[in-house]
Amino acid sequence: MRIDGRKNDQVRAAKITRNYTKYAEGSVLIEVGDTKVICTASIEDKVPSFLKGKGEGWITAEYNMLPRATATRKIRDIAKLKVDGRTMEIQRLIGRALRSVMDLKALGEKTIWIDCDVIQADGGTRTASITGAFVALVDAINKLHKEKAFDIYPIRNFVTAISVGIVNEEKILDLCYEEDSNAKVDMNIVSTDEGEFIEIQGTGEEAPFNRNDLNELLDLAQKGIKQMVQIQKDALKMDSLWIGTGGRD
Amino acid sequence: MRIDGRKNDQVRAAKITRNYTKYAEGSVLIEVGDTKVICTASIEDKVPSFLKGKGEGWITAEYNMLPRATATRKIRDIAKLKVDGRTMEIQRLIGRALRSVMDLKALGEKTIWIDCDVIQADGGTRTASITGAFVALVDAINKLHKEKAFDIYPIRNFVTAISVGIVNEEKILDLCYEEDSNAKVDMNIVSTDEGEFIEIQGTGEEAPFNRNDLNELLDLAQKGIKQMVQIQKDALKMDSLWIGTGGRD
Amino acid sequence: MRIDGRKNDQVRAAKITRNYTKYAEGSVLIEVGDTKVICTASIEDKVPSFLKGKGEGWITAEYNMLPRATATRKIRDIAKLKVDGRTMEIQRLIGRALRSVMDLKALGEKTIWIDCDVIQADGGTRTASITGAFVALVDAINKLHKEKAFDIYPIRNFVTAISVGIVNEEKILDLCYEEDSNAKVDMNIVSTDEGEFIEIQGTGEEAPFNRNDLNELLDLAQKGIKQMVQIQKDALKMDSLWIGTGGRD
Amino acid sequence: MRIDGRKNDQVRAAKITRNYTKYAEGSVLIEVGDTKVICTASIEDKVPSFLKGKGEGWITAEYNMLPRATATRKIRDIAKLKVDGRTMEIQRLIGRALRSVMDLKALGEKTIWIDCDVIQADGGTRTASITGAFVALVDAINKLHKEKAFDIYPIRNFVTAISVGIVNEEKILDLCYEEDSNAKVDMNIVSTDEGEFIEIQGTGEEAPFNRNDLNELLDLAQKGIKQMVQIQKDALKMDSLWIGTGGRD
Amino acid sequence: MRIDGRKNDQVRAAKITRNYTKYAEGSVLIEVGDTKVICTASIEDKVPSFLKGKGEGWITAEYNMLPRATATRKIRDIAKLKVDGRTMEIQRLIGRALRSVMDLKALGEKTIWIDCDVIQADGGTRTASITGAFVALVDAINKLHKEKAFDIYPIRNFVTAISVGIVNEEKILDLCYEEDSNAKVDMNIVSTDEGEFIEIQGTGEEAPFNRNDLNELLDLAQKGIKQMVQIQKDALKMDSLWIGTGGRD
Amino acid sequence: MRIDGRKNDQVRAAKITRNYTKYAEGSVLIEVGDTKVICTASIEDKVPSFLKGKGEGWITAEYNMLPRATATRKIRDIAKLKVDGRTMEIQRLIGRALRSVMDLKALGEKTIWIDCDVIQADGGTRTASITGAFVALVDAINKLHKEKAFDIYPIRNFVTAISVGIVNEEKILDLCYEEDSNAKVDMNIVSTDEGEFIEIQGTGEEAPFNRNDLNELLDLAQKGIKQMVQIQKDALKMDSLWIGTGGRD
Repeated sequence: MRIDGRKNDQVRAAKITRNYTKYAEGSVLIEVGDTKVICTASIEDKVPSFLKGKGEGWITAEYNMLPRATATRKIRDIAKLKVDGRTMEIQRLIGRALRSVMDLKALGEKTIWIDCDVIQADGGTRTASITGAFVALVDAINKLHKEKAFDIYPIRNFVTAISVGIVNEEKILDLCYEEDSNAKVDMNIVSTDEGEFIEIQGTGEEAPFNRNDLNELLDLAQKGIKQMVQIQKDALKMDSLWIGTGGRD
Repeated sequence: MRIDGRKNDQVRAAKITRNYTKYAEGSVLIEVGDTKVICTASIEDKVPSFLKGKGEGWITAEYNMLPRATATRKIRDIAKLKVDGRTMEIQRLIGRALRSVMDLKALGEKTIWIDCDVIQADGGTRTASITGAFVALVDAINKLHKEKAFDIYPIRNFVTAISVGIVNEEKILDLCYEEDSNAKVDMNIVSTDEGEFIEIQGTGEEAPFNRNDLNELLDLAQKGIKQMVQIQKDALKMDSLWIGTGGRD
Repeated sequence: MRIDGRKNDQVRAAKITRNYTKYAEGSVLIEVGDTKVICTASIEDKVPSFLKGKGEGWITAEYNMLPRATATRKIRDIAKLKVDGRTMEIQRLIGRALRSVMDLKALGEKTIWIDCDVIQADGGTRTASITGAFVALVDAINKLHKEKAFDIYPIRNFVTAISVGIVNEEKILDLCYEEDSNAKVDMNIVSTDEGEFIEIQGTGEEAPFNRNDLNELLDLAQKGIKQMVQIQKDALKMDSLWIGTGGRD
Repeated sequence: MRIDGRKNDQVRAAKITRNYTKYAEGSVLIEVGDTKVICTASIEDKVPSFLKGKGEGWITAEYNMLPRATATRKIRDIAKLKVDGRTMEIQRLIGRALRSVMDLKALGEKTIWIDCDVIQADGGTRTASITGAFVALVDAINKLHKEKAFDIYPIRNFVTAISVGIVNEEKILDLCYEEDSNAKVDMNIVSTDEGEFIEIQGTGEEAPFNRNDLNELLDLAQKGIKQMVQIQKDALKMDSLWIGTGGRD
Repeated sequence: MRIDGRKNDQVRAAKITRNYTKYAEGSVLIEVGDTKVICTASIEDKVPSFLKGKGEGWITAEYNMLPRATATRKIRDIAKLKVDGRTMEIQRLIGRALRSVMDLKALGEKTIWIDCDVIQADGGTRTASITGAFVALVDAINKLHKEKAFDIYPIRNFVTAISVGIVNEEKILDLCYEEDSNAKVDMNIVSTDEGEFIEIQGTGEEAPFNRNDLNELLDLAQKGIKQMVQIQKDALKMDSLWIGTGGRD
Repeated sequence: MRIDGRKNDQVRAAKITRNYTKYAEGSVLIEVGDTKVICTASIEDKVPSFLKGKGEGWITAEYNMLPRATATRKIRDIAKLKVDGRTMEIQRLIGRALRSVMDLKALGEKTIWIDCDVIQADGGTRTASITGAFVALVDAINKLHKEKAFDIYPIRNFVTAISVGIVNEEKILDLCYEEDSNAKVDMNIVSTDEGEFIEIQGTGEEAPFNRNDLNELLDLAQKGIKQMVQIQKDALKMDSLWIGTGGRD
């Protein structure tokens, strides 16, 4: 039995609220258990300098935690004039994850800025950020799509993420903060809705793990991914993306 | 008639949700019209170095807007390695406002960190921050009070803030963003619940103003303060600070 | 009786020396009691990016204190990699004050950089900076005016500033540092030569103040403004600006 | 056939030169193909503040590339006042990898600083850094061990790293830069000498990958790990660590 | 004939005003031609961490130019978050020069902060800074001396500086800005009052120079040093350090 | 007898390895005794903004020490967000030295970036950097020269540097770190191969020095320069630039 009564292969209650704030082209509040993240997608009509004139777009992500998203207050990055290493790692992960399902040529010379601001952190903020940010991205892209901004619909797949780990010799799905603190192995899986991997990051922080461990953890993760994709589809009220098509209805 | 149908002396619909996040000692979501700010109060058991050993406490405030709290995405301070001048000005104002009603000796060697993070900005974010932060402060102080941390209850007065201004020759209360953008005179008033001033900041951005203008604006502001104080009292379920603190005599 | 023997409604001896340094288009040393500030106005033939192509000019101000302008040495901003919050607040105030009397369209696509460097600080550095910077600004604008750079003379009014406050229950004008340190209420007034307000910033640092207090303080301030405007006019050897005119002689 | 003539499961020629510089307690030049990294281990007799008084040690790593380690000159971090996100990610990985095989209690209140400075980069700099840094760490620890600094020898396992990836539909081991640039899937594996995983980081940058792909890549990686561990053992002239023992010979 | 009518071996009119500002322990305005620098010496009762507990003092210098000390406005360091390389070089030179004549053991555990702020720059700001800062240092040390802070008077020698250079094939003394801009060889000499060298920095910016050139330049410099030392002695009203310090035997 | 057995006028064993790394247009490892510096020259086809459109090129240098190039680990600049003052001084010196022998007009609108990264420091790192960087510069320029990039060969002279100093009353050439730490006078000389001076920087850190001392030190330095120039010529396999260049085909 887990500390919050869940079974080992059970994800926490999750909820995605769309149009959470009024200005962003896509804006989502994702809640996974007590983890709450505001994810917005903002469209900008230019690209970073390394892409200028190449006819391609870009997606970049920033991640941040409000100072009191955690049990003890965290000093803001600007007070130290340094981005936290963990923050940098996470925002790079979010950016890669979302770019991996995008046809950046089809997007054209636009940048989508993804902002994931954690207002309450209880484990799994990076995976919740990816899962929520994808929904905000779809909303922003669909806004452009309605304006007939694309020839080809630029999102190829759903992308979702979930964590797994080994705690007290048990392999468990979707770790809350307390479980995460005690995990010997901690793994974050980013996946398409078809169950293929986009990113696997597993760390044997306290003890190394073997191929068997890995396989059992991946089985668990793939169960979780299915559930999280369904939550995304329900929120978006769509069963599939209009992949590659021009007409959206 | 104002753009959102209000009368000149009418504040926007305002709502204060306490215990908005679970970790902070005080945590409030304040909504004033479409302006939404998360205000938390965090207790730290030490004081800044300039106060060490003096037996006094401190209150310090930080203010920030999420990048997409506004119509166009704002670059994060950390990306420029500089705190925005406006941000600096506002967080200093919030800190002064809250300290002005505190008995810092009674607080003892503690620091209260106030964090005001704007998730949606439609004008009046600094006054909403003060109004909301005060409620978060009361909740944090009352938590200490229950633990019998003080001999004397350290909050002396309610503190509330509201904006007034001159737009199209009309003097109006509680400006939304569009009104603020067109204001010739813009004024922020911080006040106690007894109607005394803690801070007056008035700027004739587009045109100077005279004593008459000032007096009419202050009349309006004092009306608004009364309404905002009531909203604080309703949220806190207390009519005065002494009643709300569990019988302090 | 005040600590330096002045009456409550008396400003300190003030002196403005024009052409204080040789390179700047406008360069002034202003002395108000023991407060001494070098104010320069520098003309640049371009505007910040947010104004490019709009046919308008800009005025921006920077304020700084030499490390030993004060009783104890102050660390330079660059040593901390951070602009002091107080500095930021003051330089934004100076910029707003000067812009408020300028016709930025008439100025055309130019930036005027105002630099206020305090070499000795004995209270009232921000108000002295505004008062001195205005004279430097006039000198710089008149240099352009002689070169027939404008169709319309771009300065609409004199702008001057003075402080007032409540110290030991007395309302006093033009506080020196020691008075300022003991003030319960501290107010800075920026005004035109016609007595209209450009900015009012009043803080009840130690105790709130009421409408009566405010009115008495504003009466005092308006007396002080008159005296300071006269000092500006004497320094500039002009009784009025050539408002809106093309010919300056 | 690969661009440098290697078979798919073949690592590049690798060489570890110990005592490469004279001051560091451990100092190694590791060359893997054309990738060259100087790895040093420096002992400091104190710990970061979060560990003070806990009787435990710490290992921290910094990674950097000389500006011209790459085909085009890379601006130094200090010129931008920002650590590169990729650098941050890599140095955190190196630190975690080395800490995972250390008994930090046995180390006692000491910090080992690992510095990995890439002088030439041809792919696999992060895995070469881990492999080389481990040898430098052993040399530094053995220096302490000779001075009888420990009751228990604090290194539990060898740690080694290698990359694998999918390029042109082929699964290959130890990617050089050109292969890495064309990889659809890119994976870095950190492992003990017993073949257990410490860290798996796999990214489907251009296309997602499935369980089969993953299994084949891990098989390849484990082959590579064996070869790299042997190179470490040869360089150190030791077949195994004196795990957990007090006497080293 | 030089552009300002001077002979090749003639220094510009120079003037040192003591007690220029009221707070610093030593405070000097030095004017050398149109170059004007405020030099202050501030006493702090502690030493940098690398000297703690060693019973020795320290002298450190900071140099800065007001933005409009020069013909075109110079951006403040804080706006770029970087100290200018030239600034860094100069302030290190000033610090070394002053330390070289100090008995830091005799000073005891105190730091003297030297601040040289250039208000107008017409060549030779670094040599004027050293010459002026020395006088401020003497005033600060004498203040301590009167309080009987030392067993041994801690200043061993006067220190003075002057520039020489080759312009249009002429060797000249004390270059103004225009001469400096056209110099093929530029040299700054820091010397004791006894004519011994503390620092020689000569640069053949446009053309190398030989031993003969060097010797002629040094002859010129030594003439200039004598004149500048006399100006220091006149300002301090002392012929030698021992007389001026109130009978030190 | 010196600590390493050298005579007073003897330089340390020195060796220059060209083509040390494979990407840079010029890449050299210079070893002078135990001091080891990697010097690279990188060509960029643009110039800094202050030179745009002037048809001239630029040479800029950056200097850095690996953290463990010294006996105790030095914190990286980026960890402090500040370039070390000593580093700044040295890299400016290297840049000036190399520019002084260049015909920047002949170079055309190109920037040569010189990077000097010290991997082991045992005194004389700045002079070794100049001596090594010159060889890297020649290699980079010759690469351009082979591509017929110039009408006039842009290097006018060899440039070499060496240190001299007074230690224990002895005048010595090419100080190692321990000698440098005990030097009363410390001097760095940058010279052409014809024995003319490009830069002289002499500091009487512990005691001033006179004309005689200076002359003896310069005699020593000129001996050292001759030897170091020969090492450059041997490495480059050219007796003079004109032979190496004018018969370049």
